[in-house]
Amino acid sequence: MTKTVHFLPDGVKATVEEGENLLNVAANAGVYIHAFCGGEGVCGKCKVKIEQGEVAATQATQLKREEIEQGFRLACQSKVVSDLVVHIPETIRKDGKRLQRKPKTTRTISARSLDDLIGGWDVDPLVEKRFFALSKPTIEDNISDLQRLTLAISRGCPECQTPSYDYPELLQELPFVMRENNWEVTAILLRGKRLEEPERIIAVEPRDTTKGLYGLAVDIGTTTVCGVLIDLNTGEVIAEASEYNGQIQYGEDVISRIIYSQRPGGLEALQERIVHTINNVIETVCRNVSIGHENISYIMAAGNTTMSHLLLRLNPKFVREAPYTPTCNQYPITRAASLGLAAHPSVRLFLYPSVSSYVGGDITAGVHACQMHKSPELTLFIDIGTNGEIVIGNQEWMVCAACSAGPAFEGGGIKHGMRATGGAIENFHIEPETLDPMIITVNHAKPQGICGSGLISIVAELLEAGVIDQQGKFNRNHDHPRIREAYDGYEYVLVWAKDSAVDEDIVITEVDLDNLMRAKGAMYAGYQTLLESVGMTFNDLDRVILAGNFGSYIDLEQAICIGLLPDVGRDKFYYLGNASLLGAQISLIDHKRFWERTVVGKLMTNMELSENPNFMNHYMASLFLPHTDMSLFPTIKEKLPESSSK
Amino acid sequence: MTKTVHFLPDGVKATVEEGENLLNVAANAGVYIHAFCGGEGVCGKCKVKIEQGEVAATQATQLKREEIEQGFRLACQSKVVSDLVVHIPETIRKDGKRLQRKPKTTRTISARSLDDLIGGWDVDPLVEKRFFALSKPTIEDNISDLQRLTLAISRGCPECQTPSYDYPELLQELPFVMRENNWEVTAILLRGKRLEEPERIIAVEPRDTTKGLYGLAVDIGTTTVCGVLIDLNTGEVIAEASEYNGQIQYGEDVISRIIYSQRPGGLEALQERIVHTINNVIETVCRNVSIGHENISYIMAAGNTTMSHLLLRLNPKFVREAPYTPTCNQYPITRAASLGLAAHPSVRLFLYPSVSSYVGGDITAGVHACQMHKSPELTLFIDIGTNGEIVIGNQEWMVCAACSAGPAFEGGGIKHGMRATGGAIENFHIEPETLDPMIITVNHAKPQGICGSGLISIVAELLEAGVIDQQGKFNRNHDHPRIREAYDGYEYVLVWAKDSAVDEDIVITEVDLDNLMRAKGAMYAGYQTLLESVGMTFNDLDRVILAGNFGSYIDLEQAICIGLLPDVGRDKFYYLGNASLLGAQISLIDHKRFWERTVVGKLMTNMELSENPNFMNHYMASLFLPHTDMSLFPTIKEKLPESSSK
Repeated sequence: MTKTVHFLPDGVKATVEEGENLLNVAANAGVYIHAFCGGEGVCGKCKVKIEQGEVAATQATQLKREEIEQGFRLACQSKVVSDLVVHIPETIRKDGKRLQRKPKTTRTISARSLDDLIGGWDVDPLVEKRFFALSKPTIEDNISDLQRLTLAISRGCPECQTPSYDYPELLQELPFVMRENNWEVTAILLRGKRLEEPERIIAVEPRDTTKGLYGLAVDIGTTTVCGVLIDLNTGEVIAEASEYNGQIQYGEDVISRIIYSQRPGGLEALQERIVHTINNVIETVCRNVSIGHENISYIMAAGNTTMSHLLLRLNPKFVREAPYTPTCNQYPITRAASLGLAAHPSVRLFLYPSVSSYVGGDITAGVHACQMHKSPELTLFIDIGTNGEIVIGNQEWMVCAACSAGPAFEGGGIKHGMRATGGAIENFHIEPETLDPMIITVNHAKPQGICGSGLISIVAELLEAGVIDQQGKFNRNHDHPRIREAYDGYEYVLVWAKDSAVDEDIVITEVDLDNLMRAKGAMYAGYQTLLESVGMTFNDLDRVILAGNFGSYIDLEQAICIGLLPDVGRDKFYYLGNASLLGAQISLIDHKRFWERTVVGKLMTNMELSENPNFMNHYMASLFLPHTDMSLFPTIKEKLPESSSK
Repeated sequence: MTKTVHFLPDGVKATVEEGENLLNVAANAGVYIHAFCGGEGVCGKCKVKIEQGEVAATQATQLKREEIEQGFRLACQSKVVSDLVVHIPETIRKDGKRLQRKPKTTRTISARSLDDLIGGWDVDPLVEKRFFALSKPTIEDNISDLQRLTLAISRGCPECQTPSYDYPELLQELPFVMRENNWEVTAILLRGKRLEEPERIIAVEPRDTTKGLYGLAVDIGTTTVCGVLIDLNTGEVIAEASEYNGQIQYGEDVISRIIYSQRPGGLEALQERIVHTINNVIETVCRNVSIGHENISYIMAAGNTTMSHLLLRLNPKFVREAPYTPTCNQYPITRAASLGLAAHPSVRLFLYPSVSSYVGGDITAGVHACQMHKSPELTLFIDIGTNGEIVIGNQEWMVCAACSAGPAFEGGGIKHGMRATGGAIENFHIEPETLDPMIITVNHAKPQGICGSGLISIVAELLEAGVIDQQGKFNRNHDHPRIREAYDGYEYVLVWAKDSAVDEDIVITEVDLDNLMRAKGAMYAGYQTLLESVGMTFNDLDRVILAGNFGSYIDLEQAICIGLLPDVGRDKFYYLGNASLLGAQISLIDHKRFWERTVVGKLMTNMELSENPNFMNHYMASLFLPHTDMSLFPTIKEKLPESSSK
């Protein structure tokens, strides 16, 4: 159920889902409210008056009894439960001037635009269950048990090849399974490409078990492993789970994992950790729907090249060493149980193929999910992380590259950087005149630090407010308690120690700004280098697809403002979310999509940026907010304060 | 070097290999010499005079000094080392009458007739080694290691599919193997059927190792496991070994093994035993040519259905229970190491497909070896053992069956029966007038019992001499110390206790004769039933092929005489020896032969004889020596004493 919230005195209206946090609603609608503590109810600043309607509010000690009776609430402690008229008291505005800001521009993909982007697919999975009431053998008809089954399977398809079978252990059970319930069995079959490959028997179960057919799609991220359990009879996701990648204890990013893998026993430890993590995901999804892990009939996974290597216990040593050759890009389809995964011994694990050492199966899966390889539209596909991966192309060709953006977007190299967990500042607004902050944290917990999306938000807001200039330096002319010179340079105080969960001021420093500029600069230089390599410019782009969980949290306008995303028509942008998981999921549900995957890999040509002089030039030019060449950012040029433009 | 031996006074001439035992030469040439002890030099009966030439003789205490000076030697202790004239003293003949007997008719296949039968083959094995000096990767050419290798492999064959690879562990070593010797590697490849299947990479080794390419062919018999190591660059057998099947401790025949397999842990124990046996064979052949077992690149094996099941740890329960369905007839190509075999983890084990529960892969391999499926000639293929397997057909069709002959040919159910090891009576002649025996034992050791070929020989000789009649009963009219009535019926004393190794008289009894008749009767009834099923008779047969080690030791004339083999032209018979091993060996050396194998299996139609009323009728009519219908045995009818014919 949607509700309308009308903010006074600005007259801004927002349509929101029931239950939404009122501080979030204001922030997303571009309505500034003092909020220093991130939404914990500690600072008591975000006092608003509910003039019409009802909120569900937590009792707050910061409000006096008569304030409550007058309708005052703390926005951060209030949930929207009806249409509202909310008045923001003058006390929290500096001078009562109307503050008109654009609403937050995050464009979450709608069901409809998702269809546009990724096309429809059928519930016609790679694995299928078929029930057979077999004839009983007699002395005149005593063919082998296996042949009895395979004949039944290929009956009605005279041109089909004899089904093959997957593993010798199947045969160990087969005679007993066939006799358990009077020769009534259900075969789990893996489709071949029609007429070219025979069907493959994965397993055989007594009785008719066709009703329960499940598959697991997994995205194996460096940080997080996400899995969805799919009912392959309906194509529905029936359970999902995610878990931190247990390898984190051996290093935050792929490079540190590779280094660890070179220690004695390191590779084995890393393999064991990722298997353990995936097993936890399997256990969670299975428990949620009360099935056993042995009921999962196929596992379709995607991960970057290093994650794929580690899962298969392939040494990633040469992934890291120039000239960066992976052991393989097409991974063998292995039996999941042979890797230690909690799976029926016959169940196969498919890993999406990689393109190169740093453009992995997660990207191939994402590109496959959004069907770039079938679209005439020139598309820029971006996955932002420690390594940013970029793909440009259409149905005829694709070029791709990875650029080492560094860990800034994951909180690395940022003084108060952290991952996007509870207490991370994920959204930020600045009151352009008082220069006071509006802080939103993940889960409205007491602020602990800054996550990637928060960092983008903070830098964009500080830039637009003229607190920092385009070189990422603080404007020394401001006389404001939050802007100060510290031991290692200027900084802005986001949260005072008393309002923070870390007993110190949470700040953003000029060093942080430098690191952010390097990160976004690498990405932007990557787009430019790839476009240039195919003789195109940003103007030629029809679509920009943001993949990855991080991508979903980026505010489009702010990301363009700092130069992380290109300044092209906002309607060209799509948020795809965890595209890697989506790709695996679709391939699992529709086998035609699965067979298509090889087309994707063949279209993609990898470029190495690390030693590419064009890339280096573009990178140097990108170390500016948003860019040294402001003609690339016409809409940003317009809105930045004159003083900070070149 | 062949030598000529001229026996006097009979004037029989024999051509023999240098070093042959003189007693054997006489026996095979049909020259009777008293020999009561089997050739141990104990009885001192086989005294002969060397009139011309030289023998290499062991000093024998049974000869006086002057006898030695006169040229007397014990035949059993003498080896032919030059052309000889040998005089057999009158003392060992009853009355000096000339004894004309036909020479032994065993027809060992010559190199030429082997070619006729099995056709030529090429040294063009299923596995091959190819050396590659790969280009080093650069930043412009940093495809994956696997792709670098597969591109090199498929170079020069644009229409070939990308080679696939066999197992994930290959990838674990690949990057290091490729870099070990400056990107010089040798790939071990498994051929695909050209253009239909891609080549498969089995393993990759650093440097150029193409000179050493080895394969192992194994015949997995119920009693004996035989293996030959083949240099696949030349096609030569470079080592061979055989070993008793270690499962014997759990039962002599397949039925007792199946029964044992149903005990808790029984299947596992049997599997472990056969693996252990094969590993011993592997160890022996490898030690003989100083290579490691990991240098064997392919294992091609054949065994009967039960042996194949047990090796793969498939429960053979239903092989034994009517209606006798095996788990499968086409065995999966497994990785040998996964079964516990001493093999490189990538090496595959191929098992010849079976046709039914009792016509196994050993028969398919044998039929494949002799190329019945390509010949227009109507052929009867026979493998005699506890289970006799029979195949009749030609290039257009084949029918096959197993008949349970019982264990008589392997010494079972025979009072003094034993396997064909040292001391087993393997050849027997009777002096038709004195009715004294000429005993030849395996290795000329003191007699311990009777093996299968000895049994056939004894029965045929006793029948021809009129000691027994066609019903297998002793002629009560003979008054001879060797023919006597014992506690459980009449018997003939083959060896007196003093000459035997077992401290008792070695005899053949009427019960033994009954058991033998049942065994040979089952075989003969099998031939008849199969021929009848396709509307043919023995006269239509162009060829009779005897397969199996036991077959090689059968005297053709004697086997026909007792009705074990059909009475057809002797020039139609071929001795193929271990056809199963031969089939595996040829498939290993010539991949075209290997691909052909499926044709063989598809041509063969199985008949179950056990409940077939025609078979039962034929069987009852066969319980006679050689048969109740003597028109089926015209040549035997002629030579049998009038009294014993019906």
